[in-house]
Amino acid sequence: MNRELVTKLYGEIDKFPIFDAHTHIDANRPSAGSLGKILSYHYYTELCNSAEYEEGWWSPDLSDDELVKRISKKLPLIHNTVQFSWFLTLASEFLGVSREDLHDPDKILKIHEDSKKIMGEKGYFESVVEKSKLKRVYLTNQYNEKLEGFDTSFYRPCLRIDPFSYFVEKGNPLQEISKITGKKIEDAKSFDEALDALFKYFSDKNFAYASVSSWPNTDIHPVDNIRENAIIKKILKGEKLSAEEHEDHVSYTFILVAKLCRKYQVSFHLMIGVDKEVYTHGVQFGTDLVNSVNSMRGYDYLFNTFPDVKFPTSVLSDTQGLELTSSAWIRHNVYPSGHWWYSNNPVDIERELSRRLDVVPLLKLIGYYSDAYYIEFILPKFRMYKYVLSKVLADKIESSKADPNVEEITVDKALEIAWKLLVENPQRIFNDTE
Amino acid sequence: MNRELVTKLYGEIDKFPIFDAHTHIDANRPSAGSLGKILSYHYYTELCNSAEYEEGWWSPDLSDDELVKRISKKLPLIHNTVQFSWFLTLASEFLGVSREDLHDPDKILKIHEDSKKIMGEKGYFESVVEKSKLKRVYLTNQYNEKLEGFDTSFYRPCLRIDPFSYFVEKGNPLQEISKITGKKIEDAKSFDEALDALFKYFSDKNFAYASVSSWPNTDIHPVDNIRENAIIKKILKGEKLSAEEHEDHVSYTFILVAKLCRKYQVSFHLMIGVDKEVYTHGVQFGTDLVNSVNSMRGYDYLFNTFPDVKFPTSVLSDTQGLELTSSAWIRHNVYPSGHWWYSNNPVDIERELSRRLDVVPLLKLIGYYSDAYYIEFILPKFRMYKYVLSKVLADKIESSKADPNVEEITVDKALEIAWKLLVENPQRIFNDTE
Amino acid sequence: MNRELVTKLYGEIDKFPIFDAHTHIDANRPSAGSLGKILSYHYYTELCNSAEYEEGWWSPDLSDDELVKRISKKLPLIHNTVQFSWFLTLASEFLGVSREDLHDPDKILKIHEDSKKIMGEKGYFESVVEKSKLKRVYLTNQYNEKLEGFDTSFYRPCLRIDPFSYFVEKGNPLQEISKITGKKIEDAKSFDEALDALFKYFSDKNFAYASVSSWPNTDIHPVDNIRENAIIKKILKGEKLSAEEHEDHVSYTFILVAKLCRKYQVSFHLMIGVDKEVYTHGVQFGTDLVNSVNSMRGYDYLFNTFPDVKFPTSVLSDTQGLELTSSAWIRHNVYPSGHWWYSNNPVDIERELSRRLDVVPLLKLIGYYSDAYYIEFILPKFRMYKYVLSKVLADKIESSKADPNVEEITVDKALEIAWKLLVENPQRIFNDTE
Repeated sequence: MNRELVTKLYGEIDKFPIFDAHTHIDANRPSAGSLGKILSYHYYTELCNSAEYEEGWWSPDLSDDELVKRISKKLPLIHNTVQFSWFLTLASEFLGVSREDLHDPDKILKIHEDSKKIMGEKGYFESVVEKSKLKRVYLTNQYNEKLEGFDTSFYRPCLRIDPFSYFVEKGNPLQEISKITGKKIEDAKSFDEALDALFKYFSDKNFAYASVSSWPNTDIHPVDNIRENAIIKKILKGEKLSAEEHEDHVSYTFILVAKLCRKYQVSFHLMIGVDKEVYTHGVQFGTDLVNSVNSMRGYDYLFNTFPDVKFPTSVLSDTQGLELTSSAWIRHNVYPSGHWWYSNNPVDIERELSRRLDVVPLLKLIGYYSDAYYIEFILPKFRMYKYVLSKVLADKIESSKADPNVEEITVDKALEIAWKLLVENPQRIFNDTE
Repeated sequence: MNRELVTKLYGEIDKFPIFDAHTHIDANRPSAGSLGKILSYHYYTELCNSAEYEEGWWSPDLSDDELVKRISKKLPLIHNTVQFSWFLTLASEFLGVSREDLHDPDKILKIHEDSKKIMGEKGYFESVVEKSKLKRVYLTNQYNEKLEGFDTSFYRPCLRIDPFSYFVEKGNPLQEISKITGKKIEDAKSFDEALDALFKYFSDKNFAYASVSSWPNTDIHPVDNIRENAIIKKILKGEKLSAEEHEDHVSYTFILVAKLCRKYQVSFHLMIGVDKEVYTHGVQFGTDLVNSVNSMRGYDYLFNTFPDVKFPTSVLSDTQGLELTSSAWIRHNVYPSGHWWYSNNPVDIERELSRRLDVVPLLKLIGYYSDAYYIEFILPKFRMYKYVLSKVLADKIESSKADPNVEEITVDKALEIAWKLLVENPQRIFNDTE
Repeated sequence: MNRELVTKLYGEIDKFPIFDAHTHIDANRPSAGSLGKILSYHYYTELCNSAEYEEGWWSPDLSDDELVKRISKKLPLIHNTVQFSWFLTLASEFLGVSREDLHDPDKILKIHEDSKKIMGEKGYFESVVEKSKLKRVYLTNQYNEKLEGFDTSFYRPCLRIDPFSYFVEKGNPLQEISKITGKKIEDAKSFDEALDALFKYFSDKNFAYASVSSWPNTDIHPVDNIRENAIIKKILKGEKLSAEEHEDHVSYTFILVAKLCRKYQVSFHLMIGVDKEVYTHGVQFGTDLVNSVNSMRGYDYLFNTFPDVKFPTSVLSDTQGLELTSSAWIRHNVYPSGHWWYSNNPVDIERELSRRLDVVPLLKLIGYYSDAYYIEFILPKFRMYKYVLSKVLADKIESSKADPNVEEITVDKALEIAWKLLVENPQRIFNDTE
């Protein structure tokens, strides 16, 4: 590693504005509000749960004060992790505390107390935005959210389709959508109309894409209206779907969503390959895992049938990395998007990023998104990515100097690549404005 | 990266002659003939199709002149790729144009015009061969090709078995083989005899191996003659095979081919794991993809039953990389062969090469083949490999100096390893001559 | 690579004592006794078999003298491998011969002769232990072994469960266990009681864990007593189990073993993903392979149902690497353990180790075990790991200096990490004593 070169590149890339193409931020309450809330992020609760499990040590009802008391003692057990490094960065940047103090469980209680005031201050949010150089934050919105009360020049809504596809039997999403849209869902046709109304509403609010976190080995195939009519009737009656009916409903919904993405000219963002709720002793959001046996073959029909819809795509497993890269290499409507969750670690980012830069047309790559729950997490996560990016680019610069077969990559050229990954590409792909 | 050491190694390795163990070159028309034809190579058309899709922009009927006009504008979109770097290398080496000009879409039209003359000149082919230090080029021949009219001391035929195994229902390969060999195929026995005659013909022409590009999760198992008789009858009548019948026919054919490889003492080259024609908006040859879910378990029967047949083997997915390496580690008749297609990128070559060098007996490794369609592509592709090889060897040299557990690898020793990978091993494994 | 830094780290780490958490050493005959026996280790016989196969060149009945004669000629064919480097290290360290001589097939015969005397000398074993800084060696014991006659402060028994789970139809393990324990196995209940008695015996001998080498895609699920009663009756009658019955028996046994691990407060060590006896021309122990298609999903029930049992886990394939890392990231009772067999090579160790250090709580990582058959192999295998570890830590140190987001990793901090991986963690996880 050429440390000087990496430092130089990182110094420049860190100055770039951030377009964060996927988050779980609540636009009406973007900040964590306290260090306790920061530590309630599942990356910390799940790692501490894993490092030192004690039945009952965590519950979703814990107050932030109580959580801080309990989790601060466990934090030293995860000091080695990159997730902890995010905590260091955000707490030192936004709360002005020293990294040393953040390593001390006893001091964390006091920092938590102080944080309530700091994070509650007028101007705090703006200072986070400014320090992070945040230009745009994409949201993850549920179908029943009111997209109001936030700055639409800063936030951009995105419609999550999981509740009425995979989780259609959880709660009463179809009835709920009927109510919201005024289109009573009774069969396939009225389901189409209700979703159209939903998309119309999101479109009026300038949403960027529909998105889904898909289960391993999902297979999208055509399902006719007669079949879907019967499925919807079962759902409405509260009868349990068979595995085949569930798959067919998911397929029907994916295809319907793709049609609406085409109509409203937005992307369909796929996040492929998570097994839900497999760990029964986990904290909230800390129960899902990656499955290494998972091909992208199940999406062929979707990609082929909607050549005019863009599919930004993330994969959860490293085993799908080359599949995604190869798909983006030949398929015009597949766009590799960021590095998701379990693959969002320096080792896997480095390999995938280097691969993508070698064989996928540059304009198709969406560099990174934070997946953050609070605005404070965007900076540290992007910084991790930017540092890995600097290392990858430095390696390519160095290698290009000895390699007689490729163009020498200058620092300027490398920074141009970084700019495309981080700014230009997401803006163009999601029809974002300056 | 020790740049000086890499440069030194590369400088030596680049001087080695090339034995290109797998190409798609037409021995009767080895050169592209123009830059337009070079750019019609699917690596360029598919990347440009992916980078900026426009319905109808490409068709197989486009003249080279028209293609150049259309594709040259899209080329800047793939400037970042290694595939583009091959274009730079070959056009600067064989056409004498500057890399700068090759970055300029407007100049490419003129270069294309000039290229027709240069590539048509007497001595041009010989100069490509000389500059590339080409010693032997292996072909991919169809069963119905006349193996005539080319220099057999330079080209070596290889028999592709896909048309009468996987694609037996496409066209009338069995009828065609009957005609060619004079052995009428009516059942399993006559199929055996006809293929024997075909192998005899290829053997008389000194072919190197039978080869196949196999589909994911192919399972080779014994199929008896009664079953195969029934399948062949269906094929001849033009009736559609069931999935099981198709699998059985493929199995029967693989086993028959292995028997004939044994009889004629040639290798059976496997290229494992491609899903055919999955992208419906692709250019010619730009529609197939890799599948990450694919075990080599389905080849156990084949490998076990023919201990006296060599199986040089390539895998398409990175997920099979360790499987191939481990198979070659213990199985005496499995030979890791090159880095194929979607795995033919610097990141994946580096990992697989390093792994193979660590745990597989050196004499079993076939370093690289180009898979080229035109003679001009051999040099740039081999150079990419040779550069990665130089980096891997430099890393091993450096590491060996600090590692008290291994022998220090000298530069001479490293070059000896490279020579085996690139020259000695393919020669010995394919019974090639000096 | 910062050679000076790597050398410095390695120099320190090499001084650490070794706690070898998994071996196949015979505590009553730990030393190989001769160089011939060293070369009978399947890593050498299988590589030589693979490098130059000759029918009949090897048989399990060969005397060590005869084996040395035959294998010494083939050894030069595997000089490039890391497995050969282990041979260099152990023979130079314990026999005092030069590495140069070990490269000469003719000299190996003489070294073998000399080795019989050296390895038979009083004090030889102790000198190996001292040179290797061996503190604890874990064994792999069969259910029918007498755990007697060895130093229990040095060796620690571990119970292998494969014979009465996967291989229950091979030999008569159930009848054998009945005899040993005095609990006649006739049905599920008496199987429970007999295994309890077996665990009681092992527990009295201070065993560390139950272990199993599991087949790909094993799925653990509850099996009721009525079903298991019927299965056991079939086994006892010598009737062949159906595939479903076999799976159910394996599931029943895994769950029973987990219950007993809970009762006797020991770990259940899983080694996931080996296809047994797939290569029919292999030497002994050289016939099994890795399968890339293999998810950890089949262990969810086991992990979830026994939150109070620790599951140190190794995976055979690289494709399961991120699955294991992610499981250990969120699951409190999964502990990544070492680098097993086909994944025990520098390339795969480096990636997995770096990944684990980035996202798994440090205290959960068991750095390495040797899997050795003779005491002489522990040192070279651990040295290989320690060297890769030194490189990974040196890279992290270097990177941390340029990375403004993470704590700078000092040399002391890096050595502390290494100590935890190699000493502190295995001791704590396996309830080992100082």
